[in-house]
Amino acid sequence: MNAKVKKITAATMILMSSLVLASCGFGGHSSSSKDYTTTGSGGGNYQGVIQNGRYKTSKARGINVSQNDNQYNLKSFENGLTQVSKRVFSPKSYIFQEGQYLDTSTLEDWLGRKTKNNPSGLNPAEGKRSNPNPIYIQQIEEQDYMEESGNSMKLKGMTIGIGINSEYNYKKKDDGPSFTKKISDAEVKRQGEIAAAKVLKRVRQKSGVGDIPIVIALYKQAPDDSLVGGSFFAYSKNSGSTISGWHQLNYKTVVLPKASGTTSSTGSASQTDNDSFSNFKSQIQSFFPNLSGVTAQAQYKNGQLNGMHITVTTQFYSQSEIASFTQYIARAAKKYLPNGIPIDIRIQSDSEMQAIVYRDAGSDTFRTHILTSY
Amino acid sequence: MNAKVKKITAATMILMSSLVLASCGFGGHSSSSKDYTTTGSGGGNYQGVIQNGRYKTSKARGINVSQNDNQYNLKSFENGLTQVSKRVFSPKSYIFQEGQYLDTSTLEDWLGRKTKNNPSGLNPAEGKRSNPNPIYIQQIEEQDYMEESGNSMKLKGMTIGIGINSEYNYKKKDDGPSFTKKISDAEVKRQGEIAAAKVLKRVRQKSGVGDIPIVIALYKQAPDDSLVGGSFFAYSKNSGSTISGWHQLNYKTVVLPKASGTTSSTGSASQTDNDSFSNFKSQIQSFFPNLSGVTAQAQYKNGQLNGMHITVTTQFYSQSEIASFTQYIARAAKKYLPNGIPIDIRIQSDSEMQAIVYRDAGSDTFRTHILTSY
Repeated sequence: MNAKVKKITAATMILMSSLVLASCGFGGHSSSSKDYTTTGSGGGNYQGVIQNGRYKTSKARGINVSQNDNQYNLKSFENGLTQVSKRVFSPKSYIFQEGQYLDTSTLEDWLGRKTKNNPSGLNPAEGKRSNPNPIYIQQIEEQDYMEESGNSMKLKGMTIGIGINSEYNYKKKDDGPSFTKKISDAEVKRQGEIAAAKVLKRVRQKSGVGDIPIVIALYKQAPDDSLVGGSFFAYSKNSGSTISGWHQLNYKTVVLPKASGTTSSTGSASQTDNDSFSNFKSQIQSFFPNLSGVTAQAQYKNGQLNGMHITVTTQFYSQSEIASFTQYIARAAKKYLPNGIPIDIRIQSDSEMQAIVYRDAGSDTFRTHILTSY
Repeated sequence: MNAKVKKITAATMILMSSLVLASCGFGGHSSSSKDYTTTGSGGGNYQGVIQNGRYKTSKARGINVSQNDNQYNLKSFENGLTQVSKRVFSPKSYIFQEGQYLDTSTLEDWLGRKTKNNPSGLNPAEGKRSNPNPIYIQQIEEQDYMEESGNSMKLKGMTIGIGINSEYNYKKKDDGPSFTKKISDAEVKRQGEIAAAKVLKRVRQKSGVGDIPIVIALYKQAPDDSLVGGSFFAYSKNSGSTISGWHQLNYKTVVLPKASGTTSSTGSASQTDNDSFSNFKSQIQSFFPNLSGVTAQAQYKNGQLNGMHITVTTQFYSQSEIASFTQYIARAAKKYLPNGIPIDIRIQSDSEMQAIVYRDAGSDTFRTHILTSY
């Protein structure tokens, strides 16, 4: 079915609908002569590709969920990958498209162990059951970066993230105890670079990829029991089929408040931030009875605090308690939490979110929104 | 313990703390010579009372949860009660305090059936098991409205909400089938007015209430299986011990989209709103695969749409899918949904909220916030 026929079919379906809908696209680049539009941009984010009125989903959609026992690793990997992409492919010039060149079965093979039946596995054969080789490569995700060209979108760049485990959990017997092998940072880096070289070569050969720049980014997975995901530590921008060199990335994620007595590996800045957060926490806990928990994920970039996600878990509150508490938290956040970084604070019970307080990057105002009901 | 001693104790506790905390209040009315501060105001909302650094919770805290099988009734009752209060006690002049005059055991007695052991029960004795008298009065909540007076807060007004059932569910035998009695609007009104007269008389006699204005507001409960709460239908402002007359309130809540073929009881405005919402729903469902549901609660005031809460339930999305979808929803909302009213749109999976898109009252901009993770 060529593009023209597709468009006519889509138009007919809309006319057949009993609802009076405007034409399917209303993005910034909508026009009656195109199959593609975009989701619209704003705030330094990418526009996404809409094809014939539908969002263009990944060829490997859903595989990422099964790749991670710890969903923090999944979210931080995906968000971090977009941040790395922004260093190379500016949202002002490029349009984001979910990965179209690596499909689910390809990635499943790559993420498996290398065996006779799976020669493309990036992980080593298991070896001895009593002392198995680790699964090093845990997740892979592709992002495509596009430019409009006449009536279509042309691939102009690609980013591929590779997540490498920092520990490996295994059993010597099915019903036996669990063992954990720590994987050193040096080994994480080495395994990542080995995998990156193979991935780059394979992706470059895919039909339609051509000589676009391919960015490969390496991510160190957090342990399965971590309350925060891992971090990207290096990326490479490549015009050929071999890795052209690595740029280091200095991200670090921590959970606050730190257990007392923990030695800080992020230096004194982190101690100051931990104190600020502890003050904030004490302030709101003294204000309100029955707060179950106040915790934060903090991200550091080059040793400086880069953002926080705070979760306040409440016991049941009435609607007026939630309203008063939200007002109070917004004021406490402004007073006690570090300036100049994006922060969000989720106020939630066990069963549902009750309110959100947040400050965007570049803003000095905390906004509040209470989730009420009629 | 007098007020001075209390303050010194609080001050000592703060000094003893290992954390350097600023003095406990930072509300708009904080001062070193007061036991009371407030949560701070903004956007036409009430400030709440903070006493010695702690939020002053209700004397009947938590009872409201057990009063309602349908939590929509609870939330809409509490939010609606504050809206009624704003008609009489302006947030510019009055400070909100959780109810301090009706405690849990008092309200439990009042909400019970009238028996020898419970002469103050507002509901009738059960009567015949095979044809029992309904429980009419389902929930009661007190709100206090204060003014600052020197170093303390003085009670200057009170609002009491009374929720009356629109149906009564019962069993003739413990293990038998359930029966439902519908309660007519006329009977809801009659039972509400009877209860209001008793409640006003009793509250007026409470120590410390004096001759402040007492507002009684009547709320018709939605059925237990409703996906939206009920509405307030009348209120009375009283300076004495007898009801001085009723003001009618014309609120109505509905769930959108309406089942096709349903006859509208809110007139043609509602049909237009339902069409707008259906267009919005079709637009975003065609955009994205696997949306499980798009539903809304809508509130009408005097026949005009007054606000909407929309819930979009998603299957799993990657972080980039959530980001693109949120951008798209904000644009679709601006294009398809009615102007000039507050709207929020919750984007959530079965297990967690993923993003929120909202427009405040008086604003024409939809804001978005994506709930990400490090």
